[in-house]
Amino acid sequence: MDYSPEPYDTDNIFAKILREEIPSFRVFEDADTLVFMDIMPRVDGHMLVIPKTPCRNMLDASADQLAACLKTVQKVSLALLGAPYGADGITLQQFNEPEGGQEVYHLHFHILPRREGDSLRPPRQQGDMEVIKAESERIRAAIEAAG
Amino acid sequence: MDYSPEPYDTDNIFAKILREEIPSFRVFEDADTLVFMDIMPRVDGHMLVIPKTPCRNMLDASADQLAACLKTVQKVSLALLGAPYGADGITLQQFNEPEGGQEVYHLHFHILPRREGDSLRPPRQQGDMEVIKAESERIRAAIEAAG
Repeated sequence: MDYSPEPYDTDNIFAKILREEIPSFRVFEDADTLVFMDIMPRVDGHMLVIPKTPCRNMLDASADQLAACLKTVQKVSLALLGAPYGADGITLQQFNEPEGGQEVYHLHFHILPRREGDSLRPPRQQGDMEVIKAESERIRAAIEAAG
Repeated sequence: MDYSPEPYDTDNIFAKILREEIPSFRVFEDADTLVFMDIMPRVDGHMLVIPKTPCRNMLDASADQLAACLKTVQKVSLALLGAPYGADGITLQQFNEPEGGQEVYHLHFHILPRREGDSLRPPRQQGDMEVIKAESERIRAAIEAAG
């Protein structure tokens, strides 16, 4: 094949979030992954799961990076279903390259907690930081309750 | 936590596709996964990656089932980028429970090959079977060429 993944840019926003050079609302982390709130939420509770090690997207990710992300996606998703957080379903999205919808070039999975009758807000609209902060606190509590 | 995944229904459409009780346009399989065309394509080339073993969705999937699916998602996606197929990016989607967008209750990842300037068609609209068949042949050829 003639496709070669693009190189990783260490100055992307999520690399800076990992290095704590810019702030984020963190809700979970383990040795391999970090979960924080999307500040352009399509629904309340919209989160991003990223590997702590560099890769551009799904196309150049190692099997270990993908497995670590999916393990965390599953753990966090399960914690949000039912009480206390009360999500009814989960929509998972992952974008690769500009035409695939990618805007930040560090692999990330979008977790959208869904509720009956909700609908997605348009993309690329900054959310209300107070609402995002409150959601992050509810989500952290739900993840801790799930253990 | 109080959430328990729903049981697996062996009569779901994808279980029937796996058992070859109903037809599908298959483009790739390995020991653990099957890839076939979505007949309600959001874009040309819209495919589904499923594990050959039963699970309802991401929530009850084993680490092995998720890893096998992602390995195939990556392999097929890489084969479609650049010549001969010519995709420019990949949008990945995965839906859990009705409120999350799920309609068939066997774990599946949607691979949407994206091209510059395209847009997604509305969901739940039956595609043109001749177009889907032609796309499946182009995709099979691209996967074989990628090796």
